[in-house]
Amino acid sequence: MDIRVVACDIFGTTVDWYTGVAAQVAALLPEVDPGEFAARWRGEYAPSMDRVRTGEREWAYLDTLHRESLDGLLAGRPVDEPTRDRLVRAWHTLPAWPDSVPGLTRISAAHTTAALSNGGFALLTNLVKKAGLPFDCVLSAELAQAYKPDAAVYHRAAALLDVEPSQILMVAAHKWDLDGARAAGLRTAFVHRPREKGPRQEADRPEDVTADLHATDFEDLAGQLGSR
Amino acid sequence: MDIRVVACDIFGTTVDWYTGVAAQVAALLPEVDPGEFAARWRGEYAPSMDRVRTGEREWAYLDTLHRESLDGLLAGRPVDEPTRDRLVRAWHTLPAWPDSVPGLTRISAAHTTAALSNGGFALLTNLVKKAGLPFDCVLSAELAQAYKPDAAVYHRAAALLDVEPSQILMVAAHKWDLDGARAAGLRTAFVHRPREKGPRQEADRPEDVTADLHATDFEDLAGQLGSR
Repeated sequence: MDIRVVACDIFGTTVDWYTGVAAQVAALLPEVDPGEFAARWRGEYAPSMDRVRTGEREWAYLDTLHRESLDGLLAGRPVDEPTRDRLVRAWHTLPAWPDSVPGLTRISAAHTTAALSNGGFALLTNLVKKAGLPFDCVLSAELAQAYKPDAAVYHRAAALLDVEPSQILMVAAHKWDLDGARAAGLRTAFVHRPREKGPRQEADRPEDVTADLHATDFEDLAGQLGSR
Repeated sequence: MDIRVVACDIFGTTVDWYTGVAAQVAALLPEVDPGEFAARWRGEYAPSMDRVRTGEREWAYLDTLHRESLDGLLAGRPVDEPTRDRLVRAWHTLPAWPDSVPGLTRISAAHTTAALSNGGFALLTNLVKKAGLPFDCVLSAELAQAYKPDAAVYHRAAALLDVEPSQILMVAAHKWDLDGARAAGLRTAFVHRPREKGPRQEADRPEDVTADLHATDFEDLAGQLGSR
């Protein structure tokens, strides 16, 4: 493989959305099970983006999709607007998995690294900064006005970084993302995040995922890429 | 001022194009005065972009504009294609001014920082990485398919970062850039780079530039912004 750019998914892959969102839910919605609520909310993620990808609706910011799915989950509950806004913003500040910063630091020494997520450009810039993730640049699906796994997102990344799709290694904890990247001509690396959806729901399993590389975390991936 | 984002020009402002390009010219074109050649080449920068801004020609990558102006400067000289390509790539690897990394590191502790240049996204990502500049994100004029001082570039930056234009502080060593930023509603900071064009040509002088802040370098700017 001739890898020039290591592009990384964010939610679940480099940061722990379950813990971060559940903590905000616990603080703001004391009447619900915070982990279960966070997982149900995240469960609406793919369907809400599918409606954009299939053309059922126009492109919308991830914040807007998060708000709509939150309103659905809260139907009938007396939760005020400021609280709903704060809940949506829980997705803007999420903790990095412990291996993400040290692993990415090693990978960045030899490769260009990019955040490549369905989050908006502003959301990603703020989230990556607060989590201390050492990316060389932020690339959002917003720049393609599309959502992964639409090939347009991966191809926009390649065009902006002036490399061939096959020179990008897409790193993600999700089969659907890696399937999309591979279909768009990218190389793929799966990072296993067994706790991504908390203790009660199973995350994507290595044995179900086709990828050029399989890693247990970003430190393992750095080693496989030959980074010291 | 309510500054949320500190956006920085690159060529001449955070990196020393004169020294970097002159070194490559000295290595590849032994028959010319390297500093004078570098300064003449840079002199074609504004006119070449003006032709895009006025609609005389379609948007083109900075590399393309650099190559065209290089070909003009080399008219009649027997310089081969690979050498011309290497000269154009001299603009991809330029040394940071000594104060840029420490000053930006301080500024980044309290503000979102962005590279905002007329260089292409790939060029900027590579240049910023090699120079070790600690920006949170790269924003290129390419994302607006326009060139500074066109308001579209500054407004695209504000939209992508989800802030008002007045919440961006544009930092540059050039009057034309700061005039454009101010006209687009941004706040402005001038950094004086007296050696930008080498020892024989005068750079923009503080007394000629209108800006909200005037700084001698990025360390001074960090101090004025209250960064430790």
